[in-house]
Amino acid sequence: MTEFPDRLLSGYRNFMSGRYSDERERYRVLAETGQAPHTLIIACCDSRAAPETIFDCGPGELFVVRNIANMVPPYEPDSQFHGTSAALEYAIQVLKIRNIVVMGHGRCGGIQAALDLDMQPLSPGDFIGKWIGLVRPAAEQIQSNDLMTQTERQTALERVSIRNSIANLQTFPFVRSLGESGELAIHGAWFDISTGELWVMNDKGDFVRPDLVETALQAEEVSA
Amino acid sequence: MTEFPDRLLSGYRNFMSGRYSDERERYRVLAETGQAPHTLIIACCDSRAAPETIFDCGPGELFVVRNIANMVPPYEPDSQFHGTSAALEYAIQVLKIRNIVVMGHGRCGGIQAALDLDMQPLSPGDFIGKWIGLVRPAAEQIQSNDLMTQTERQTALERVSIRNSIANLQTFPFVRSLGESGELAIHGAWFDISTGELWVMNDKGDFVRPDLVETALQAEEVSA
Amino acid sequence: MTEFPDRLLSGYRNFMSGRYSDERERYRVLAETGQAPHTLIIACCDSRAAPETIFDCGPGELFVVRNIANMVPPYEPDSQFHGTSAALEYAIQVLKIRNIVVMGHGRCGGIQAALDLDMQPLSPGDFIGKWIGLVRPAAEQIQSNDLMTQTERQTALERVSIRNSIANLQTFPFVRSLGESGELAIHGAWFDISTGELWVMNDKGDFVRPDLVETALQAEEVSA
Amino acid sequence: MTEFPDRLLSGYRNFMSGRYSDERERYRVLAETGQAPHTLIIACCDSRAAPETIFDCGPGELFVVRNIANMVPPYEPDSQFHGTSAALEYAIQVLKIRNIVVMGHGRCGGIQAALDLDMQPLSPGDFIGKWIGLVRPAAEQIQSNDLMTQTERQTALERVSIRNSIANLQTFPFVRSLGESGELAIHGAWFDISTGELWVMNDKGDFVRPDLVETALQAEEVSA
Repeated sequence: MTEFPDRLLSGYRNFMSGRYSDERERYRVLAETGQAPHTLIIACCDSRAAPETIFDCGPGELFVVRNIANMVPPYEPDSQFHGTSAALEYAIQVLKIRNIVVMGHGRCGGIQAALDLDMQPLSPGDFIGKWIGLVRPAAEQIQSNDLMTQTERQTALERVSIRNSIANLQTFPFVRSLGESGELAIHGAWFDISTGELWVMNDKGDFVRPDLVETALQAEEVSA
Repeated sequence: MTEFPDRLLSGYRNFMSGRYSDERERYRVLAETGQAPHTLIIACCDSRAAPETIFDCGPGELFVVRNIANMVPPYEPDSQFHGTSAALEYAIQVLKIRNIVVMGHGRCGGIQAALDLDMQPLSPGDFIGKWIGLVRPAAEQIQSNDLMTQTERQTALERVSIRNSIANLQTFPFVRSLGESGELAIHGAWFDISTGELWVMNDKGDFVRPDLVETALQAEEVSA
Repeated sequence: MTEFPDRLLSGYRNFMSGRYSDERERYRVLAETGQAPHTLIIACCDSRAAPETIFDCGPGELFVVRNIANMVPPYEPDSQFHGTSAALEYAIQVLKIRNIVVMGHGRCGGIQAALDLDMQPLSPGDFIGKWIGLVRPAAEQIQSNDLMTQTERQTALERVSIRNSIANLQTFPFVRSLGESGELAIHGAWFDISTGELWVMNDKGDFVRPDLVETALQAEEVSA
Repeated sequence: MTEFPDRLLSGYRNFMSGRYSDERERYRVLAETGQAPHTLIIACCDSRAAPETIFDCGPGELFVVRNIANMVPPYEPDSQFHGTSAALEYAIQVLKIRNIVVMGHGRCGGIQAALDLDMQPLSPGDFIGKWIGLVRPAAEQIQSNDLMTQTERQTALERVSIRNSIANLQTFPFVRSLGESGELAIHGAWFDISTGELWVMNDKGDFVRPDLVETALQAEEVSA
């Protein structure tokens, strides 16, 4: 076994002398009392779309699931897709988290793979192929539109997939009942890694830029 | 659908006026050229153990999988556990990442659940129960050791589980062959959320504090 | 016949005491020497998407065709669609304009009408229905995608239609030959009336935001 | 495909930092609520006769059709001339616009082409020739008057053509009935690009200079 990567050790050293020295007490308390994150976020593994970075969140705030293409499978007690379901169950039933964000992003490799209808398995297990199966029907429909450019189809499927995952969240009985009673809120977001823009889903399912100026004014009023 | 959470929008605003204004060009290039992260890290969903924070990594560096108790299932082409396997396949076969870190942490809720042998299902799907099944045999063995305190059993299983996951990584043929040729390195780490300490696995499987002073000196020599 | 509308007369009075007093000489010379606009722009009749406003252009600069949904029909010498073809012929063959921009915009009523597959004729002549026929096949294909929201379909067709019109431009022999010799350039643009953003078409047919900062730097270099 | 023209990008940048920063909210509201322009104006493509400029109108005010020589064809449900008819139908039947202005101008190239009775087709399609056919009978009659100078014949035909187009407007049943009930007003105007003067049509069909001082006084009385 080789040495632990220098890049990570030096990054850790920066963490300790930088952020951690400000947040030391916070970590200690969180260890003692346990975590009470305000949001469950389902994000992509992509190195360019890290939730803590994008939302400038610190320890204790976000309970984060990251998988290929930020997907939530439908509720199937005997389903293959247990990892994300287990994290969802833990977040809602144990940690009592009441805000869920499904965050996708531009240039998503998983979505690109889904649109590559001739893609060959990358190992005998074809794990990507099976995982992407969650969104393959939608991918086939979108890829059949030859009027759109590949980039337009990619962006379309990234957003369709977020809406899909939100619909799948609502097939979990414990999510649906909390949503119906108004105790749980579900949100969609899409991060443009090229421009840093965040688009959020409105109640029509459309992705729009939030009015950040207005939000700032409201936040100031609340804290005054 | 309620408004997108203010806390996240104001965090995003901080990101845009802060980090992003320094990293703007980096995001733009990463969008254009694609990502080439140096490390795949399998971490826990826990809000107190975020890899980018702990290793002070920026966009493009870490390909991150986060699931309950940072587990890697064994290679089973017909397995239920496709999410993590798909991310692993994508990282190794598509992105050609050649460093893997399995990072666990103290006070892990998933490990705690595994040690709770009488735990009742938290929903009819019992997703946590099934997911934790990956480490249940080890949990039973450790929990039966009545000489250790619960905290010692917790820490022990956290580390056993990391070693388990590393062994499981090596059941994936594409991981094993790259490991054998020396092209791929696998590492284990354990983050103490209470003290901020990072422990890394040595080649005996033990978790030790890396000598950060020595590492700093070596890094300076290399760059001189 | 009623009085000429006051709003227009008072606007004209503003024009005479404002802009015109600065541009008086320019109009006089243009009247004497004739016009030599640098760009033919095909834009929509929409009151929110005026080319001279959006591109801050003055007299003599833009030769402007405005019709419903900024469409260019295919070259058909015996076709019904003579108006836009005549303007194109005049611009290229008489005025020797060598830049063409097809500019669409968001919330386009013509595109919305095209996507309304059950739309009834608004007069026995059904002029809108026939005009929109230029883009109806594309509209049917896009409207059949039930995964996208109506807004997403609208934006998609607005852009497909621009690409369509650009392709139709190239069916005019005098446009095609000048394009092939590199003497004529054709561009696509899409104006977001909600945010004022201009998106321009790249050589993949995708609509992107131009880097206005870079453009400003280049412009300064050229004039230095 | 070459770069989008710098002149247009820098004009757009001026728009964004200038007018748009004052009109931002207006665009946003217009996008949300839709357009309700007060006037449909049929103008010429000519770069020196832009309606928004001449009437100092902003976003949302004018629904603008621009074609060669600002012509309106007669109502023919099976007519070839669908573009302008479609825009007229949209303006009156959909947007419920109740003011129409047909605006011609001096030095009109289309009118000049109409008077050039020996003009050869400028492409096999002879699009200009066919379009100008709308006014060719009048052109032949005027051109045969050898007592007038060419400039006088030009100005005469420009004004005859405006009256022609106004008469053609009234062949559209939906225009005629709204005109008869007094709900719709039609106006003619002629812009002298050499002097900036605006001439408006009175109920005899003559083009006269409006008394702008009187109009200003009346406007002040109304607002007092």
